[in-house]
Amino acid sequence: MHSQIRFIYKTNTNQCSRYRGEIMRTINWSDNGHIILTDQTKLPKECATIECNDVDTLAEAIRSLRVRGAPALGVAGGFGIALAAQTSRARSQRDLIRDIEHAAEVLRNTRPTAVNLFWGIERVLKKTKTGRSVHQMKELALEEARKMADEDVEICKRIGEHGAKLLEDGDVIMTYCNAGRMACVDWGTAIGVIRSAIGQGKRIKVIACETRPLNQGSRITAWELLQDDVQVILITDNMVGHVVKSGMADKIIVGADRIVEDAVFNKIGTYTLSIIAKEHKIPFYVAAPMSTFDFEKRAADIEIEERSPQELKYFGDEQIAPLEVEVYNPAFDATPMENITAIITENGVFHPPFSFKDIRGKES
Amino acid sequence: MHSQIRFIYKTNTNQCSRYRGEIMRTINWSDNGHIILTDQTKLPKECATIECNDVDTLAEAIRSLRVRGAPALGVAGGFGIALAAQTSRARSQRDLIRDIEHAAEVLRNTRPTAVNLFWGIERVLKKTKTGRSVHQMKELALEEARKMADEDVEICKRIGEHGAKLLEDGDVIMTYCNAGRMACVDWGTAIGVIRSAIGQGKRIKVIACETRPLNQGSRITAWELLQDDVQVILITDNMVGHVVKSGMADKIIVGADRIVEDAVFNKIGTYTLSIIAKEHKIPFYVAAPMSTFDFEKRAADIEIEERSPQELKYFGDEQIAPLEVEVYNPAFDATPMENITAIITENGVFHPPFSFKDIRGKES
Repeated sequence: MHSQIRFIYKTNTNQCSRYRGEIMRTINWSDNGHIILTDQTKLPKECATIECNDVDTLAEAIRSLRVRGAPALGVAGGFGIALAAQTSRARSQRDLIRDIEHAAEVLRNTRPTAVNLFWGIERVLKKTKTGRSVHQMKELALEEARKMADEDVEICKRIGEHGAKLLEDGDVIMTYCNAGRMACVDWGTAIGVIRSAIGQGKRIKVIACETRPLNQGSRITAWELLQDDVQVILITDNMVGHVVKSGMADKIIVGADRIVEDAVFNKIGTYTLSIIAKEHKIPFYVAAPMSTFDFEKRAADIEIEERSPQELKYFGDEQIAPLEVEVYNPAFDATPMENITAIITENGVFHPPFSFKDIRGKES
Repeated sequence: MHSQIRFIYKTNTNQCSRYRGEIMRTINWSDNGHIILTDQTKLPKECATIECNDVDTLAEAIRSLRVRGAPALGVAGGFGIALAAQTSRARSQRDLIRDIEHAAEVLRNTRPTAVNLFWGIERVLKKTKTGRSVHQMKELALEEARKMADEDVEICKRIGEHGAKLLEDGDVIMTYCNAGRMACVDWGTAIGVIRSAIGQGKRIKVIACETRPLNQGSRITAWELLQDDVQVILITDNMVGHVVKSGMADKIIVGADRIVEDAVFNKIGTYTLSIIAKEHKIPFYVAAPMSTFDFEKRAADIEIEERSPQELKYFGDEQIAPLEVEVYNPAFDATPMENITAIITENGVFHPPFSFKDIRGKES
């Protein structure tokens, strides 16, 4: 199967996240039966939406971070299985299951750390298998994936409502990477909390860290916030100590890629930020859906994805390091629970000591 | 006076710091009576040496960081006054003093934080004024500037010797920005310590942080170390917490731009790094010449240079943030003395509580 990415439309930056007057979802199912998603590698210069009409194209989009962010990856996994089911030529249920299991394997191999991806894949796989005919299985797959996408928006709104109570009028909130609309189907987790607080009439200013090496903070978060007329100040990641020490930031809110009993895995740099918050005694919040919890594992069990050295050697076409230099490029780090002030979920705000038994009891 | 930069030669990257078989000095006086320096903004892709034949050209080179690093700036300041003296058409001593005072003012206005620049300017100004004729003043200016350059190499070697005692065989040393040969006339301060330790037969590996927004770590430090066959691993600045927590780094050594009684001013991000070292209980060393001390001031008195927002919006020609975003871009931060394990100078290693009376007593 030849992998291809077909651009279906492009709009200019300022209109990008609005399509036909509506806020566009970051990932969605198109009228002609494929997955459409905003190609986030092109931001902020260009806002291109791409259509994935086979699983390999979707896998490439995930691997290249055209779609990224834990909640969005969960939905991408679900839509991926739906796409495999819908485009399968299988005539028997057994053959269809073989096709979707194959798709699941391709998708699981894209990014090892984000648990939501696995969760999304499993959820649609499981639902699909309850179908009693090939036709019904295909319908169930798409229905479940669409339901996940709708739920994701709903969940982010609930995370926002719970979290907004922690923010005060006039707060300056530091955030990291992108845990906003572009990391989800819509609204966002960490940025969703900020959006909800602003929706309640609170005046909130945001400090965005650029988030090397792929600059999700400067390219995506800053762009996303400006689109909504939220005041945002961009800094480099190394400035966090100086900025927090100067009293410029009141609170820090980040997203999460996987939460285990003893640590929160999130974009590399989150741990550094948590130490700075602890040193200067400002709150350090994590905002994430319940699907981010991995109740079975501990930090030591988690494989941290290492990405290509090229990400530190080039910026676009610009060479920024000697080509022969050794590079260490982990995509995530682990922040121990003792550095976290609270975890904000759709089921409420959890406080230390973060009893996994209690949190699990709140699973919907 | 029209400012111009004349490229006198270019070599490819691997031969750059060697000219006619010799290690080239970062900044020097050319045979034809001008200042030559390596244009560090072009590294690591290209190693271009530029010639400054008037003070405005030198000022532009300092402002654009074609030459940077506290010790190199001190020598640049000194050579700048020598250049002004040598090229002056003044026929009286009074007119010559007017010309060099004007040059001093132009050079002082380039970068406000690095004390060495001011120190280098003052030193050559003072010496020049002792001359008894225009001719003698011109000679004294150049002689003093050349002496400063020679002394800088000598001082770095002594810093290296003192500091090398703190490093053990097998150490992995994290460094930040570039406090190496390219920040000095030769050898380096923080990297000079590493060079001296390697010279003693110790096996040392270096972790270089890329140092946003201008990537002196990836562009200059990594390149400089690879030229000397020193093993170097490149990371992004946000990884420091994760890397130190993982036990990958045994010690941290950084340079300094100004040391006052209660803080060390160095490249933005140094403070963040010092918190990480404290949290994980690894030594945090500062290596700098005595000329970096400012015995008259305290941290609150120091103006921190803020650089252009463009540095965070573009990488070369590549746009990496929305053009309308607000940017905070301080070039330096202040690390309080309590975060510092020792300060390594040419006059010895100083330990807490860093009595300025004692340190001043050791001034040569």
